Amino acid sequence: MAITEDWQALVDQKLIDRASQIPPAWKLSSDLTELVRPDASISAFDLLRRTTLLSPRELEITETYSAEKLVGLLATRQITSLEVTTAFCKRAAIAQQLTNCLTEIFFEQAIERAKELDEYILKNGRPMGPFHGLPISLKDTFMIEGQAATLGFISFLRKPTATKNSSLVEMLLEGGAVLYVKTNVPQTLFTCESYNRLFGTTMNPHNLSLTAGGSSSGEGALVGIRGSILGVGSDIGGSIRVPSLCNGIYGFKPTTNRVPYGGQQELLRRGWPGILPAAGPHAQSASDLTFFVRSVLLSKPWLRDSTALAVPWREIPRKTRLTIGVFLNDPMFPVFPPIARALQAAVAKLKSAGHEVIIVTAPPLITGVNGATRSLMLDTNDTISKYLAESGEDPVECVRQLNPAALLNQDVYSLDDVWQFIAEREDYREDWGKVWRENQLDVLLCPASRGTAVPHDKYGAPVYTLIWNFLDFPASVIPYEHASKALDTAEMDGFDGAPCHVQIVGWQFQDEEVLSATETIAEVLNS
Amino acid sequence: MAITEDWQALVDQKLIDRASQIPPAWKLSSDLTELVRPDASISAFDLLRRTTLLSPRELEITETYSAEKLVGLLATRQITSLEVTTAFCKRAAIAQQLTNCLTEIFFEQAIERAKELDEYILKNGRPMGPFHGLPISLKDTFMIEGQAATLGFISFLRKPTATKNSSLVEMLLEGGAVLYVKTNVPQTLFTCESYNRLFGTTMNPHNLSLTAGGSSSGEGALVGIRGSILGVGSDIGGSIRVPSLCNGIYGFKPTTNRVPYGGQQELLRRGWPGILPAAGPHAQSASDLTFFVRSVLLSKPWLRDSTALAVPWREIPRKTRLTIGVFLNDPMFPVFPPIARALQAAVAKLKSAGHEVIIVTAPPLITGVNGATRSLMLDTNDTISKYLAESGEDPVECVRQLNPAALLNQDVYSLDDVWQFIAEREDYREDWGKVWRENQLDVLLCPASRGTAVPHDKYGAPVYTLIWNFLDFPASVIPYEHASKALDTAEMDGFDGAPCHVQIVGWQFQDEEVLSATETIAEVLNS
Repeated sequence: MAITEDWQALVDQKLIDRASQIPPAWKLSSDLTELVRPDASISAFDLLRRTTLLSPRELEITETYSAEKLVGLLATRQITSLEVTTAFCKRAAIAQQLTNCLTEIFFEQAIERAKELDEYILKNGRPMGPFHGLPISLKDTFMIEGQAATLGFISFLRKPTATKNSSLVEMLLEGGAVLYVKTNVPQTLFTCESYNRLFGTTMNPHNLSLTAGGSSSGEGALVGIRGSILGVGSDIGGSIRVPSLCNGIYGFKPTTNRVPYGGQQELLRRGWPGILPAAGPHAQSASDLTFFVRSVLLSKPWLRDSTALAVPWREIPRKTRLTIGVFLNDPMFPVFPPIARALQAAVAKLKSAGHEVIIVTAPPLITGVNGATRSLMLDTNDTISKYLAESGEDPVECVRQLNPAALLNQDVYSLDDVWQFIAEREDYREDWGKVWRENQLDVLLCPASRGTAVPHDKYGAPVYTLIWNFLDFPASVIPYEHASKALDTAEMDGFDGAPCHVQIVGWQFQDEEVLSATETIAEVLNS
Repeated sequence: MAITEDWQALVDQKLIDRASQIPPAWKLSSDLTELVRPDASISAFDLLRRTTLLSPRELEITETYSAEKLVGLLATRQITSLEVTTAFCKRAAIAQQLTNCLTEIFFEQAIERAKELDEYILKNGRPMGPFHGLPISLKDTFMIEGQAATLGFISFLRKPTATKNSSLVEMLLEGGAVLYVKTNVPQTLFTCESYNRLFGTTMNPHNLSLTAGGSSSGEGALVGIRGSILGVGSDIGGSIRVPSLCNGIYGFKPTTNRVPYGGQQELLRRGWPGILPAAGPHAQSASDLTFFVRSVLLSKPWLRDSTALAVPWREIPRKTRLTIGVFLNDPMFPVFPPIARALQAAVAKLKSAGHEVIIVTAPPLITGVNGATRSLMLDTNDTISKYLAESGEDPVECVRQLNPAALLNQDVYSLDDVWQFIAEREDYREDWGKVWRENQLDVLLCPASRGTAVPHDKYGAPVYTLIWNFLDFPASVIPYEHASKALDTAEMDGFDGAPCHVQIVGWQFQDEEVLSATETIAEVLNS
């Protein structure tokens, strides 16, 4: 099946419209852009350094501060939102040209909004809210009034633009945030890849020939290259954590429905009985993950969004000595040398920093993976495939392989599968409960993937992240170390310099504990 | 179908064993016991006052104090656990003879345990925990090592006694509680009645001819007649609140899995995708509801039970002025005159006490009831009917009527029904979300049933409680006013003096707010 000319015309127009949102003055020269290809083993950071588009001040703004620090400067009028917003819009424009990470671009509105916020603080003598003046990027799934939300489905080009903000968008705006871009996703959003037939491939800024991960692909690449200081993604199997680890940034998947998820673009069939997605932040530091989640929860999302849980933010003291369970590897899904090295190095550093590190015996990953997979196969209406079929879009290879909805005869799934999935989840939760109880763990440290970012379309099943969605456990990713053909193995050549990571996992609802431990552990690893 | 002689012999032996657990000195005279019949329109309180079995001191202990007050006296050694336990065992023995509320009786172990606790505090100079020395009764569904848990199923007589405590039982024991009885339930536990074919009918102490409600029937009757000062039931459609309102006591259904539910006797097929049951307290005062829930949550149930949510107890300030939404009646399920009068009187009192009372437009009850009912029909294995069939037990009339599992061909339910139930729940939650948001409610006040306790086997569907299980909202019952043939209507004759009530409902996870408001509202209503 192929898309018709009518649809192709819509696609072409969409890409023209998107490109037109980048001011001519912010366009890169063609000698740079012609190097940008998903098979080019080059670094977007190198290309960025070869332009003079960003002024020293804009480099300072986009590279020197944390989001929380910027908000502090904005709230005390040491910097204007106009200056910050312009810097990030410009850098996002460059990021788009180097990595193809954006779906919707609305710099003009952003700059208008920034000016209004600068006037607001001048007039009122106080910031509008916790995000006053800060540009925040959003995954394409969020609805922003007047903007499209195509999710990379060609058929969604015929949907009207949003008439209502998602509840989180509404909260960010009331909190003083500046919205300026929406970011790309893979076809169907059910893979950890970065390609869809509408917008094409989002590339990894560390190496364009590697995947940016997914499904929050664009957030990963954009925050990775600091075209955004704080981005919001969503995660049903690894979709925040995988792009984070691929692009060398921090990411956090909260317990479901703590960060409000209401009012997103439709994707799942309504009434989904399986694993639920969670919205959460991508950032350049652990403390910015906390800054985001704390600020959102202190604004009491449940007062505006009936899907948000009324579980308030808890201020907890930082523990000076953590009890950290470590799970290095599941023999069925062996991790590759760079990740093994990063984990071992992390363990050594944490031990010598005085934390209690306990190597735990983990329940088999496959048990959780099988249960989670069953829960992802329950849509006998095959809703997502219909989105593809509507425009004649073919499923890409990784969708064929990974998303059973596109492949299997779903009628083999029945009511009994729901019972079985829930019972399996209970059992698996108890298996992990024993690990937590016997070792009195604060958090668990483990891989979030078998390797670093891999070439496009080769990510496979996100087994090390998916199991925590199955259990609804909060989990973060800390970028740590890089793949090295010298230190690892010769086969790692194509991955040389790709970011490595560790994953920090906590018990359901212990988001505060995971964020606090993530900050502590990141400090140790970065010291 | 009828049970065979083999099974009947087991039933007979069980009843003999149960009776033998009541010491001869605590047996009522036959002139009293021969009056006890489920069709006798007499008060167990009257019968109790005609005995001299309870000493003035025992009457004082069982009638004068709250659980929290008793624990205070126990912790400061102003009273011994032996004295308290003996008093409640004795009164429970009388309650059993007057209302048939108990399934398992273990007074000897209780008295032994009380002595140990008295020694403990003497030796250690401090109480064992928050429940030190306090007798607590438990619904039959809880597992207590060495005790049976038949749930009133004849076929369960062949199950071994419990080899492991339920997690809540373990916590209560570590907290210093004295366990002494387990309490009766209706056949299948899926009705609000009080009869099963193993133990017979539990009667309402206010009027033996009225139902004690269900499914925590025995708790309702036992706490109602003060044979227990604090009892634990469970609620999947009203099973804590209905017995509470029938027997004129306080009851609280928390948000699911805050009070730990792990390790109960099997009843539901594993992997239940529908509404989940919640464990919670029955008490003689609103503050004892808080005392129980706070004490359990401060002991961090999630550290021992992987099904318990890691949502810690929040200490919140008591609000001096509550915003109370009021929902008096759904036209499709009209409430009877005594309840309408109680609600109106409560509204008037709350207004004059300075609270903001807003009559809200409620979403139709039937929407929630239909969604909830669908979610209760998903066991295509018909697990509970099999428990009946195993011994040849016939389903009783109200099971036939109310529990579709026993009646309908369940194969009409499919995977799509799960999707539909979840989508309907989301919609209904949003319908109520609008009510909460538009009125900025702290809590909602509404009926918990159409009427007071009714004659046995006439309760019908618990529509005013079930909808809050569907939404997983915490809800309490406050006993308030009594039916009166003088004040209500002449048809209320048979119900004269039966307790009326109000129900207090909060948003999911706002258990603390509901408990706090319940205390405030109870103070106003009792003033």
